[in-house]
Amino acid sequence: MTTEIREMIAKAVLDVRSTRPLIGSVTNAVSVNFVTNAQLAVGGSAAVVYLEDESKLLAGMGDAFYVNMGTLLPVHGKTIPNTAKQLDLTGTPWVLDPVGIGIGSLRTKVLMKLKTFRPTVIRGNPSEIIALANLWGVTDGGECKTRGVDTTESVSDAKDAAVALAKWIDGAVAVSGETDMITDGEMTIYSEGGSPMMESITGSGCSLGGVAAVYSAVTSPFIAAITATAAYNLAGRKAAARSEGVGSFQSIFLDELYNASAEDIANNPLRMEE
Amino acid sequence: MTTEIREMIAKAVLDVRSTRPLIGSVTNAVSVNFVTNAQLAVGGSAAVVYLEDESKLLAGMGDAFYVNMGTLLPVHGKTIPNTAKQLDLTGTPWVLDPVGIGIGSLRTKVLMKLKTFRPTVIRGNPSEIIALANLWGVTDGGECKTRGVDTTESVSDAKDAAVALAKWIDGAVAVSGETDMITDGEMTIYSEGGSPMMESITGSGCSLGGVAAVYSAVTSPFIAAITATAAYNLAGRKAAARSEGVGSFQSIFLDELYNASAEDIANNPLRMEE
Amino acid sequence: MTTEIREMIAKAVLDVRSTRPLIGSVTNAVSVNFVTNAQLAVGGSAAVVYLEDESKLLAGMGDAFYVNMGTLLPVHGKTIPNTAKQLDLTGTPWVLDPVGIGIGSLRTKVLMKLKTFRPTVIRGNPSEIIALANLWGVTDGGECKTRGVDTTESVSDAKDAAVALAKWIDGAVAVSGETDMITDGEMTIYSEGGSPMMESITGSGCSLGGVAAVYSAVTSPFIAAITATAAYNLAGRKAAARSEGVGSFQSIFLDELYNASAEDIANNPLRMEE
Repeated sequence: MTTEIREMIAKAVLDVRSTRPLIGSVTNAVSVNFVTNAQLAVGGSAAVVYLEDESKLLAGMGDAFYVNMGTLLPVHGKTIPNTAKQLDLTGTPWVLDPVGIGIGSLRTKVLMKLKTFRPTVIRGNPSEIIALANLWGVTDGGECKTRGVDTTESVSDAKDAAVALAKWIDGAVAVSGETDMITDGEMTIYSEGGSPMMESITGSGCSLGGVAAVYSAVTSPFIAAITATAAYNLAGRKAAARSEGVGSFQSIFLDELYNASAEDIANNPLRMEE
Repeated sequence: MTTEIREMIAKAVLDVRSTRPLIGSVTNAVSVNFVTNAQLAVGGSAAVVYLEDESKLLAGMGDAFYVNMGTLLPVHGKTIPNTAKQLDLTGTPWVLDPVGIGIGSLRTKVLMKLKTFRPTVIRGNPSEIIALANLWGVTDGGECKTRGVDTTESVSDAKDAAVALAKWIDGAVAVSGETDMITDGEMTIYSEGGSPMMESITGSGCSLGGVAAVYSAVTSPFIAAITATAAYNLAGRKAAARSEGVGSFQSIFLDELYNASAEDIANNPLRMEE
Repeated sequence: MTTEIREMIAKAVLDVRSTRPLIGSVTNAVSVNFVTNAQLAVGGSAAVVYLEDESKLLAGMGDAFYVNMGTLLPVHGKTIPNTAKQLDLTGTPWVLDPVGIGIGSLRTKVLMKLKTFRPTVIRGNPSEIIALANLWGVTDGGECKTRGVDTTESVSDAKDAAVALAKWIDGAVAVSGETDMITDGEMTIYSEGGSPMMESITGSGCSLGGVAAVYSAVTSPFIAAITATAAYNLAGRKAAARSEGVGSFQSIFLDELYNASAEDIANNPLRMEE
């Protein structure tokens, strides 16, 4: 089974590079440059918008979409839900990153609306995934403590929430941690690699979500999430080995993402849950 | 004639470095950091605003201005046209980058208003230049297909549109491509160099527009557009030769832009259309 | 006395690294990525918001806060004053960077409101510090000329304004220049190092303010401002020696900030005014 998954990963990497899918994004101001550069580095084309009509248009013309809930502005109150509605109507794949969940009334209101316009991939840290499952009422819950944008839970703590969310959206959920977990609600894959340094730069999680959106343009939500995670774990591990700190890490990370072969990404350590 | 142009390029590079002109900008969230760092790298001073009164004030006190139409917010609906009106009144040089033309009603509305407050330089990819010429009705048209923020046309396809726009604004138009074209409506210059890697990072076009604004503070629109393009082609070519991917490319590109001598920029390959 | 200060600097550096304080920020779009990456590089955790309720929540749950007045949007008119009010109520340390002071009516209106919700640290260039002291009426004034975001005054010109502001807020004021000055209204410290290259990149001042906010979570306003300044002067000097231009400088600067030992930061050249 992992052999087949590795073949699908390699195909996704190559298909993105040969077709250059267009990915629209509504994403936060902190990491928007890193997100789009990562999307371009893997072979996608990126366009970022704030306004509702632009976003809906881009949702219709693009090959996939990325919605990141960071640094909300008033305009997002209409843009995000109506873009999601449009993506749902046209069956366009899209990735949701519920960053900051629990902070502020607009974020909660928008996230509640997204429950019915189900994203194809959800990416977050353990606390965010648990909080979203609770907010949407798709699990019995369990306690969840977020603190700003950092997680206070481990990946295994978020297993039930991730599976429940994946079933609800009929897609895939990727939970970021020391070992990353990706589930489609039935099967669960663990992906190894990366570097603690990824926690010491802004936007590593956001840009992983943005890159998952790129791959979701050419493959299933599950394979897209696995491919993006594998590419990040490979590039993160290699960049950490070559860098001298958080500044050079970012630069080298993008180099490694850009240069990674389909084979190397497919062969990045992953294991299926027995 | 190219000898005279080269002399004017060298003079513009040196004049910016000795006078440090102040460039106000209304520009998009994706590449705002790269745009301002590029403006500083060539020797300018940069200030970015969103609000109408701030922008008008900056238009009045600055030496040149840059307007980029990416990632519009509602506030831009008043800020951009009224800034352009102010720039027109005071005769301050300014560069327009019509990025995203065709996407959304606000962008179209704002761009229509800019027709009468003629920018001194317009910079875009071929599709954007053709689309703007069509929107303003300054050419008979011809078909134009944009796809997100990428071009689907070649530089030569945009020749008529560029000439027509340059005549309308009585300034210069720079069309970015493998070989870049700059025209003042009478004379057309082609500038060589750069690297395909510039298409694999965000903001290379935006920041070229921002740098053209810096040079337009000290020279004619035509020479400003040629100087910025030559500096970019030189730095892009040198950075591509030394970089290992899209991450290190950005870093080295800014280094090369910062270190380029006036002579080297002036001697970057350019040819006049016979 | 400087021995005791050096000990407190070293302690602040280590305390941040061991406790990872959460710093909320309302900061400008140009340098938001650099600000948050610098905050993470020294060991903090960063969260950025625009909306009033999110900002107030973060002001309450965070360990310190950073307010930067650049690239204002309409939403900031409520967010900034009400966040400051909340920070004042809870006694949470916060840093104000009055960038752009004098440009636009909203900035002036907001800055006036901040007079009563006294920040614990104010950071700015000489012109900004003089302008703020004048705006708040805490000095007899003296002429102040700002030009965009650059200073037209020297650090020593701003001495009286800095002392008056520090007394008014009962905190610390950091004035950036070739030699930086930090005062708590009684004592004045000068910090050496850095590089002229810091003026050739965007956000070096903003991110210094953001890093001062990180340190203010674990020490007094005065020591926080001195520690941030010393760390910047150390990293800036070392990065300038190793970099080849403004692009590599940014990358290496973050590396140096991340790698600097508490001892090296504490031992960075500083002198007390006799």
